[in-house]
Amino acid sequence: MGIFLALIHHPVLNRLGEVGTTAVTNVDLHDLARAGRTFGVERFFIVTPIELQQELVRRVVHHWTDGPGGRRVKSRVDAFSLIEVVSDVETLRARVREIAGEDALLTVTGAGLQEGTIPFPAMRERLKTDDSPVLLLFGTGYGMAPELIAQADIRLPAIVGPGGIADYNHLSVRAAAVIVLDRLFGD
Amino acid sequence: MGIFLALIHHPVLNRLGEVGTTAVTNVDLHDLARAGRTFGVERFFIVTPIELQQELVRRVVHHWTDGPGGRRVKSRVDAFSLIEVVSDVETLRARVREIAGEDALLTVTGAGLQEGTIPFPAMRERLKTDDSPVLLLFGTGYGMAPELIAQADIRLPAIVGPGGIADYNHLSVRAAAVIVLDRLFGD
Repeated sequence: MGIFLALIHHPVLNRLGEVGTTAVTNVDLHDLARAGRTFGVERFFIVTPIELQQELVRRVVHHWTDGPGGRRVKSRVDAFSLIEVVSDVETLRARVREIAGEDALLTVTGAGLQEGTIPFPAMRERLKTDDSPVLLLFGTGYGMAPELIAQADIRLPAIVGPGGIADYNHLSVRAAAVIVLDRLFGD
Repeated sequence: MGIFLALIHHPVLNRLGEVGTTAVTNVDLHDLARAGRTFGVERFFIVTPIELQQELVRRVVHHWTDGPGGRRVKSRVDAFSLIEVVSDVETLRARVREIAGEDALLTVTGAGLQEGTIPFPAMRERLKTDDSPVLLLFGTGYGMAPELIAQADIRLPAIVGPGGIADYNHLSVRAAAVIVLDRLFGD
């Protein structure tokens, strides 16, 4: 088994519900690389088709691995070493297949997801016995486009509080992703 | 019962282990206000003695409540309405007493905490029956100063992954705080 994390910048929805592309957010790289390292993620992919954004991510990763940031803060080297940039979801799946030696369970979650979802405790149990690799996708912007959600093997429910999904349903993607990692792989 | 969250910018440790003061980070306000609103937090306090930083936080809160940000993104109004600025931990405790009508259980966590801690499931059970208000402190920088940790009624263990505390222990304060909220109050 291997755990793979991917942050999707395309195809995602914008505020109007149209499919588009978001910009990479620096703090996402830090928070999710550190959380990925904490919870045993093997590779953390940034998915964006924009070449200048890909280059930006590579420069940030360089700074925190081989560059001055990494020399200053050793724990960031471990975290940022997990990051890899890919241009699209097809390439992402191919890279995971290459690393893991087989197809990964494509797993999605999102603020709107309720129907057809597997509860977290059941998924956690499944991952203890099933040694398929698992690829967790998280959407930026207003969430992953429906055509990407539709490809998933596994849907995890939206993270909500005691008031349920109708009460408030607006966590940052960073918050949602770290909670999912903790629920599935935390101690 | 009431749940109160506080992000401590003083007294915290710096890289050298000295007690000092950190700057407020904008994304902390967003991520923790949204997570606070999700998990039923009554008030989210920013604790800093620096007046210019207090003023900065008030301006950001204004922008996302009564200002243009709030008019554009309604869900941020709910989240940012939770934020209040206080100058020190004594004032913090007095404000919580004023709002809750009694002293809150002062609860700390931190990347180094193991000894004398209450496991999360036990604390979650306790909060279901004990209706004392609870005040959760999170330290920025290199964690809360020992004299602040020493005041706590309850110590929660560090958030670690399958490799334990010796493997990797460097989550962002945002990530640690949202995981703690989810473990104690998640659905």
